Amino acid sequence: MEQKNAPKLVIRRLPVYLRILDNLISNDVEIVSSRELSDETGFTAEQIRKDLAFFGAFGTRGTGYNTSFLREKILKIIGLDEHTNIVIVGAGHLGIALTRYNITKNPYVNVVAVFDVDPHIIGEKIIDVEVMHISRLKEIAKRHAVKVALLTVPSEQAPIAASEIANSGISVILNFSLSKLHVPDSVYVRNADLSIELQSLIYYANSK
Amino acid sequence: MEQKNAPKLVIRRLPVYLRILDNLISNDVEIVSSRELSDETGFTAEQIRKDLAFFGAFGTRGTGYNTSFLREKILKIIGLDEHTNIVIVGAGHLGIALTRYNITKNPYVNVVAVFDVDPHIIGEKIIDVEVMHISRLKEIAKRHAVKVALLTVPSEQAPIAASEIANSGISVILNFSLSKLHVPDSVYVRNADLSIELQSLIYYANSK
Repeated sequence: MEQKNAPKLVIRRLPVYLRILDNLISNDVEIVSSRELSDETGFTAEQIRKDLAFFGAFGTRGTGYNTSFLREKILKIIGLDEHTNIVIVGAGHLGIALTRYNITKNPYVNVVAVFDVDPHIIGEKIIDVEVMHISRLKEIAKRHAVKVALLTVPSEQAPIAASEIANSGISVILNFSLSKLHVPDSVYVRNADLSIELQSLIYYANSK
Repeated sequence: MEQKNAPKLVIRRLPVYLRILDNLISNDVEIVSSRELSDETGFTAEQIRKDLAFFGAFGTRGTGYNTSFLREKILKIIGLDEHTNIVIVGAGHLGIALTRYNITKNPYVNVVAVFDVDPHIIGEKIIDVEVMHISRLKEIAKRHAVKVALLTVPSEQAPIAASEIANSGISVILNFSLSKLHVPDSVYVRNADLSIELQSLIYYANSK
């Protein structure tokens, strides 16, 4: 497949394009130029044209790119056209909100289960996803080949929850807790940031 | 001030640098090279050096940038070193989670109040922020010169809530509802995306 040869930096930029395209499509915008993509992403128009040309001739010279068509192509290139199984660890407010969000908004993500330790919520459902006790994480992770865990527990519970995830064989954690995680080198942790969007909006609001 | 002359594209890239720096600092990394910033951001190392040189000589040739120093400089450049008053409209799971997140994590953001219509939660506090009835939005927005509203109500309530925000004089909405908003041209809406981070992690997990 073409993407095997794509430079790492190109791959890093694709989800950014995807997000802009999602926004444009939700606003019924059918065509977008590389100049407009540049304004939204911070990448230069020339770089964007080069990035997209790498994967084939998606655009029409002088008009731009068809937003839906380009979105489908990028989904396929980065492998989001097939389901990925994830779990959410922590059934508090953020865990519940993210479960609902992913079920409703992300067709390429399958939330297999939500884990917690609070006996009052074990067995409850968030839409159609069951809340299970954390002791079942390893079994469920193996059975469903879970690739990614979203960690949404309070800071003080983050170390033990991170160990449970590492022990379950899941190798990627998106950490929404405000705690720094200590896990084996085989586990990749990225700290989520719920505020990056707000930051650039604040710049915008202040300059109005 | 120098930033008045900064190209728009440079300004768009700064919050991205800020986020990487926050992650590095939380991992106790003190020095970062433009090459490492390139790996994390998708911008080329050359572009990063040019961007940062625009605001002064932050780096040390041959070693890199001091992460904390660079972070402080960028905060100042984009105006995040002063408090910005925001409100959150919708005291559901996501609204509560975002209120807590901003109070704990974002020192430059001041959540003035959370608004809802449910009489059972009006008057409650999320940490130290009061939940108020939406009918008080205009009064509070004027009094505290609120710049940005985070909209976290369910889709079906989004249109009426967006009207209330527009009527209150707040001119920027970060829309977490899954609904498309129709507001006057004077109001800028950006649709939030809780999944961009997860998307690039999925690519990473699949390629492991």
